[in-house]
Amino acid sequence: MPANRAVIYQGPDQVEIGDIPYPTYEMKDGPGVNKANIGRRTPHAAILRTVASNICGSDQHMVRGRTTAPEGLVLGHEITGEVIDVGPDVEYIKPGDICSVPFNIACGRCRNCKEGKTGVCLNVNPDRPGSAYGYVDMGGWVGGQAEYVLVPYADWNLLRFPDRDQALEKILDLAMLTDIFPTGYHGCVSAGVTTGSTVYIAGAGPVGLAAATSAWLLGAAVVIVGDLNPERLEQARSFGCETVNVADGDPAEQVQQILGKDAPAIGQPLVDSAVDAVGFEARGHGADAQTEMPATVLNSLMEITRAGGAIGIPGLYVTGDPGGVDDAAKVGSLSLRLGLGWAKSHSFVTGQCPVMKYNRNLMMAILHDRVQIAKNVNATAISLDQAPQGYQDFDSGAAKKYVIDPHGLIR
Amino acid sequence: MPANRAVIYQGPDQVEIGDIPYPTYEMKDGPGVNKANIGRRTPHAAILRTVASNICGSDQHMVRGRTTAPEGLVLGHEITGEVIDVGPDVEYIKPGDICSVPFNIACGRCRNCKEGKTGVCLNVNPDRPGSAYGYVDMGGWVGGQAEYVLVPYADWNLLRFPDRDQALEKILDLAMLTDIFPTGYHGCVSAGVTTGSTVYIAGAGPVGLAAATSAWLLGAAVVIVGDLNPERLEQARSFGCETVNVADGDPAEQVQQILGKDAPAIGQPLVDSAVDAVGFEARGHGADAQTEMPATVLNSLMEITRAGGAIGIPGLYVTGDPGGVDDAAKVGSLSLRLGLGWAKSHSFVTGQCPVMKYNRNLMMAILHDRVQIAKNVNATAISLDQAPQGYQDFDSGAAKKYVIDPHGLIR
Amino acid sequence: MPANRAVIYQGPDQVEIGDIPYPTYEMKDGPGVNKANIGRRTPHAAILRTVASNICGSDQHMVRGRTTAPEGLVLGHEITGEVIDVGPDVEYIKPGDICSVPFNIACGRCRNCKEGKTGVCLNVNPDRPGSAYGYVDMGGWVGGQAEYVLVPYADWNLLRFPDRDQALEKILDLAMLTDIFPTGYHGCVSAGVTTGSTVYIAGAGPVGLAAATSAWLLGAAVVIVGDLNPERLEQARSFGCETVNVADGDPAEQVQQILGKDAPAIGQPLVDSAVDAVGFEARGHGADAQTEMPATVLNSLMEITRAGGAIGIPGLYVTGDPGGVDDAAKVGSLSLRLGLGWAKSHSFVTGQCPVMKYNRNLMMAILHDRVQIAKNVNATAISLDQAPQGYQDFDSGAAKKYVIDPHGLIR
Amino acid sequence: MPANRAVIYQGPDQVEIGDIPYPTYEMKDGPGVNKANIGRRTPHAAILRTVASNICGSDQHMVRGRTTAPEGLVLGHEITGEVIDVGPDVEYIKPGDICSVPFNIACGRCRNCKEGKTGVCLNVNPDRPGSAYGYVDMGGWVGGQAEYVLVPYADWNLLRFPDRDQALEKILDLAMLTDIFPTGYHGCVSAGVTTGSTVYIAGAGPVGLAAATSAWLLGAAVVIVGDLNPERLEQARSFGCETVNVADGDPAEQVQQILGKDAPAIGQPLVDSAVDAVGFEARGHGADAQTEMPATVLNSLMEITRAGGAIGIPGLYVTGDPGGVDDAAKVGSLSLRLGLGWAKSHSFVTGQCPVMKYNRNLMMAILHDRVQIAKNVNATAISLDQAPQGYQDFDSGAAKKYVIDPHGLIR
Repeated sequence: MPANRAVIYQGPDQVEIGDIPYPTYEMKDGPGVNKANIGRRTPHAAILRTVASNICGSDQHMVRGRTTAPEGLVLGHEITGEVIDVGPDVEYIKPGDICSVPFNIACGRCRNCKEGKTGVCLNVNPDRPGSAYGYVDMGGWVGGQAEYVLVPYADWNLLRFPDRDQALEKILDLAMLTDIFPTGYHGCVSAGVTTGSTVYIAGAGPVGLAAATSAWLLGAAVVIVGDLNPERLEQARSFGCETVNVADGDPAEQVQQILGKDAPAIGQPLVDSAVDAVGFEARGHGADAQTEMPATVLNSLMEITRAGGAIGIPGLYVTGDPGGVDDAAKVGSLSLRLGLGWAKSHSFVTGQCPVMKYNRNLMMAILHDRVQIAKNVNATAISLDQAPQGYQDFDSGAAKKYVIDPHGLIR
Repeated sequence: MPANRAVIYQGPDQVEIGDIPYPTYEMKDGPGVNKANIGRRTPHAAILRTVASNICGSDQHMVRGRTTAPEGLVLGHEITGEVIDVGPDVEYIKPGDICSVPFNIACGRCRNCKEGKTGVCLNVNPDRPGSAYGYVDMGGWVGGQAEYVLVPYADWNLLRFPDRDQALEKILDLAMLTDIFPTGYHGCVSAGVTTGSTVYIAGAGPVGLAAATSAWLLGAAVVIVGDLNPERLEQARSFGCETVNVADGDPAEQVQQILGKDAPAIGQPLVDSAVDAVGFEARGHGADAQTEMPATVLNSLMEITRAGGAIGIPGLYVTGDPGGVDDAAKVGSLSLRLGLGWAKSHSFVTGQCPVMKYNRNLMMAILHDRVQIAKNVNATAISLDQAPQGYQDFDSGAAKKYVIDPHGLIR
Repeated sequence: MPANRAVIYQGPDQVEIGDIPYPTYEMKDGPGVNKANIGRRTPHAAILRTVASNICGSDQHMVRGRTTAPEGLVLGHEITGEVIDVGPDVEYIKPGDICSVPFNIACGRCRNCKEGKTGVCLNVNPDRPGSAYGYVDMGGWVGGQAEYVLVPYADWNLLRFPDRDQALEKILDLAMLTDIFPTGYHGCVSAGVTTGSTVYIAGAGPVGLAAATSAWLLGAAVVIVGDLNPERLEQARSFGCETVNVADGDPAEQVQQILGKDAPAIGQPLVDSAVDAVGFEARGHGADAQTEMPATVLNSLMEITRAGGAIGIPGLYVTGDPGGVDDAAKVGSLSLRLGLGWAKSHSFVTGQCPVMKYNRNLMMAILHDRVQIAKNVNATAISLDQAPQGYQDFDSGAAKKYVIDPHGLIR
Repeated sequence: MPANRAVIYQGPDQVEIGDIPYPTYEMKDGPGVNKANIGRRTPHAAILRTVASNICGSDQHMVRGRTTAPEGLVLGHEITGEVIDVGPDVEYIKPGDICSVPFNIACGRCRNCKEGKTGVCLNVNPDRPGSAYGYVDMGGWVGGQAEYVLVPYADWNLLRFPDRDQALEKILDLAMLTDIFPTGYHGCVSAGVTTGSTVYIAGAGPVGLAAATSAWLLGAAVVIVGDLNPERLEQARSFGCETVNVADGDPAEQVQQILGKDAPAIGQPLVDSAVDAVGFEARGHGADAQTEMPATVLNSLMEITRAGGAIGIPGLYVTGDPGGVDDAAKVGSLSLRLGLGWAKSHSFVTGQCPVMKYNRNLMMAILHDRVQIAKNVNATAISLDQAPQGYQDFDSGAAKKYVIDPHGLIR
């Protein structure tokens, strides 16, 4: 068996490269593995040689010590790889296939999977519905920021690219199909973005930029991105977005100014759709820009969105946050101005994106050059050894999406 | 011109019968009339002789002094009536038609109306989108707990009953089409209720009972209603609902017990759909049952609803509540456990029900004896003079829906 | 291994009981088995002891000699059974489970299955998308009018009933979940049936009666069923439907008479929704009632349906019909008055019902006594030996749905 | 009152410019005016000075003598104009507004309008639901290929452009909002086009090119356009479409070749979505390319579309066609291979596009430079006097969309 090097969480702000076991078709005990999953057989799984494995903003929550992630946890849930072996139950996926792995692990056999709700699969996480690779409290499936990784229910979960050469040529774009591109797209779809929409995206990190890209792909007329990181806002402007620096104050006024000329057509100088691509570690606006204020984003989205509009919330909110700013935050409670949202008949859609619902369509758009997601999120390949530095730079606000390339397969 | 007697709000807990002007095709100044609406011509309006005009739970917020409603405000937004005159722009509605009036006032000419979002019409309330008859901050359209009432944009707003005699025979049922039946139905639709659903309805007031009725009509398998008023729970049981007395503690455990046998089919012993028919004056559960705790209902719905489920929120939440329990409540903010909802991929739909989207279909169901909404909500006709007593009894928790019958037309 | 007796097609109008091999986890050659499927391993399958296996109207097409079905074909695609063994890849279905088998065979791993389109699965029929048990040109999966049957992709395909005793008690109702109940329901959903709808169902055979039952379950206000078999029309009237005997002439006039009083509410004296539960062997109307006229039903539905209405077509239309009335019919072509449908903006939805989309919800409705499908379609249990007689009686127009009970498990 | 020159149909292949009365707020008798509409008052109407009025392919059906259009009929239903006067019931539209007129005339007060089905309004055409300006059997509303035109129910029907200068600058694009852009878009939406779709458009006339443009706007990955006019196919290629010349034979083989590489991703080498932008005057394929064969297009779309795909039919099919090729065609009947469509679970959506559902969104896309519809359909401004020549050139197959500019307002 080959060696298997991986990115390992070793405590707050500590990410290291280390050796882990090569995958086998049975779950073993280890850091973060749910006891009920130990010994679970996975004849339906495939073993992948990792082609690309991205660092995600939600990994940062763990790395910053904002969760109960145990030391030794192997990170990585944004995996693209080449199948090198399949279990005896795998029928359609074959060795040699280059595939995208949805970050949600799903069984393809429970009620939720049959309903397309693969983000809340009932069978993969003994603690509660929903799972992911390399993530705290998600059942203990080993992360994929590694040379090799196991993907259970391979026929169900894997999206095969139609052509190997074509896939490798566009791999930086295709690598975004595992999480951020569908997640941003889901945020927009949940917010009702369609042809001619006016859209506000809170957050210019990779998910925010992917949401902005998705808004354009869905035909939006105006896409406004808000953040307090000037470099990331610059990145948003690079593909046609308007931007709002929330460090300058509440975005409502700036948004109204941008939309002034469109107001007669919209009905109000407000957006049709808003997406929260920030989540629970949100900062305040204006003078509060350095202070964590977890309800800021959602409350401002209710102000910015027109009556009759909708709000998509792909940004992560958690059930427990030991490092939360107050007792409410520690249990995932937010002081939301729901009365305002109610007066405007807003709808709110939360939760993990069910990646499988969108990844095939987005793949087709990439393969036919309809969208440049890698360029828009500034996807940047790094080696496995550079991953710890990548985590640090990303945490410092680099306007980059780091793609770990453990086998040097990305040109 | 005939005299016009009406129900008038005269300050906290004071409701009186008094004389008001007979309607004309131009808006006049008066208590609660928006300055910008004074003098507004309404050639598109009809004048109705009120056949039925219901007391609504949302009227109670005003009567309890929980709003800034001015003294002298004519109450009533749940109106059914006979057309006795029409303005020169009215083309299809004719004198003699018996009609249901959606509580939302809508112009039928703005973007939101064209999109079917009549709850947030852009043209009828100078303050903000959305309007209603006889309600604070809603533009100043005179209420319909009166002998006569003006209905603007009559061709758009009015739903004509196909046959006069048939209508009068079923008038107590049809009177529920103006608000609570569509509102309860909208709550269920928003919560994804369909054939075979398991449903929890928070609140056994008229909207809650209408929501429970709607859940059955939509084909639900199990309908559970929670409240702390035993008489109202008894009413819910009278048409097949399971009930939970939240005074006995958090409903989650009781709900799980009721659904235990269905858990293998549902995936979890939780409901598919939950409806908040309580709104901002919610009380706590168990020992807190006498204390106002505005976020209790929504937080418990997130617990009770399965991963992948949905929550409809027809219960009223407001942008300002001078009598709120704390500073947050006073501006309509609630401490919501959104992290829990997010982990379960819940969606939340808020706002006024756009009545027009549903009232024709529900009318057909009533006319063809598919549903007994009047019986289920215990609709009870009273005279105009009994209205003040009706307000008092309703506030005391009577399990009745009071229908004011100003002209003695209801048998 | 136990013996395995089954219903076998032996040529036009010949149905016999005979012995067939006990199921194994590998497909064998046999009458109607697609060459490409021979030797196919099915470790994902379960072996079921048949509890109920219904005779379907679409079986009659084969038995009447209207297809190229080979002699020796084992019939039966409406299967309910008890799991007695599972292949090594089956993880969640267990021996002892009583389950409903969707008539569509689906892999749960292809694009169409992931999209919920299990009626056109890409992996189970080498000839073309879509498959079924015991049916000509459907890949060669052995039929289930037998004592034992193999169900591939068991975790995906099987719907487990939550409780064994409860299941056996309601087995005649639950047996309708494999095909006709979801099929009728799909027809209604495709035709836009909802609360308050007016609905016309063409055909009072089991699918038509199941569609009528579904229309009521979906909240329809008026359900009109048309046929030329008085006994079947009587059955439709037994649960509240209006009926039209098409032997008396074109149904349009009768439908308009029934809906006359509702016309002001509907907008036209026509139905909102129409369902074709007849398919390609349709007879004419009036004087043509004994003549096969394959386009009659669809053309009359366009007349009967209001502008803006919709038409669901669960009735089977085929790509080849050797016994068709003319050259066009032989290749599945119909002379349709599409110009009329176009003028009314009709939509048309065709194809096999994707059973899995509906069967769980309908099961919940049955288990909670919300619907009496067995009574409405007059489900009648017979022994395996009575099956040939059942085929004959059904073909003669008996207003019954025959449920074969090979092991005497139905009370 | 100003003079009013207009384009008038004077018999087969005869189109002339002549004087017609200036619009008034009451319908007068005239060629094609429905008797029941004579004397109808329209205080809800606006009078527009025509800025742009396009020649439509559906006008050609009349001009070719394929309908019962009377001599003297004023043509034109694709109208953009400046409001110069409004009736007393018009409240929000003001003189000076530049507006787009949906070709469907709709009252905004009937059931169908309230449901958004403005293509089948119940109140504007005494003969049957649905109406249009200047069209045979549509009630007799005077056409808008004229200097001035009356638009009834102006607050409901008119879409106001937010800024006059901006509107005039983009007028050739905005002029497409009255019909072909929404119609093509509706065809795509009806056919399920979304991000990553593969799409076939039958017909490269203006509606076909608008559908192709819409497919791109909706995010399609591959758009294939079929026609037998090389110049129009060249136009399709100018904005990235693949093309198929159906004069070379049935398009199925060519489509499969184009999609070969995508087949593993699609599931089949067929399109997800197909749009019929041809209608009832279709020609055959290959050797039959000069012969009218009205069912050719729809039958080939069933072949080309994958199992599980959908077909949108914005192309016009009529209830009566005196010049039809055979008795079936004369009553709008087509020999359709529905058995094939059924086997693939196809859905079919027909009818007039309800323009109002889409025009605001498409306007926003135009105003923000998200789409270049004028360039893609080769919109070409001509004077009123050039209109007869325009009709002739268009009928000869010019790859142009003629926009009549009666007042010389288009640069």
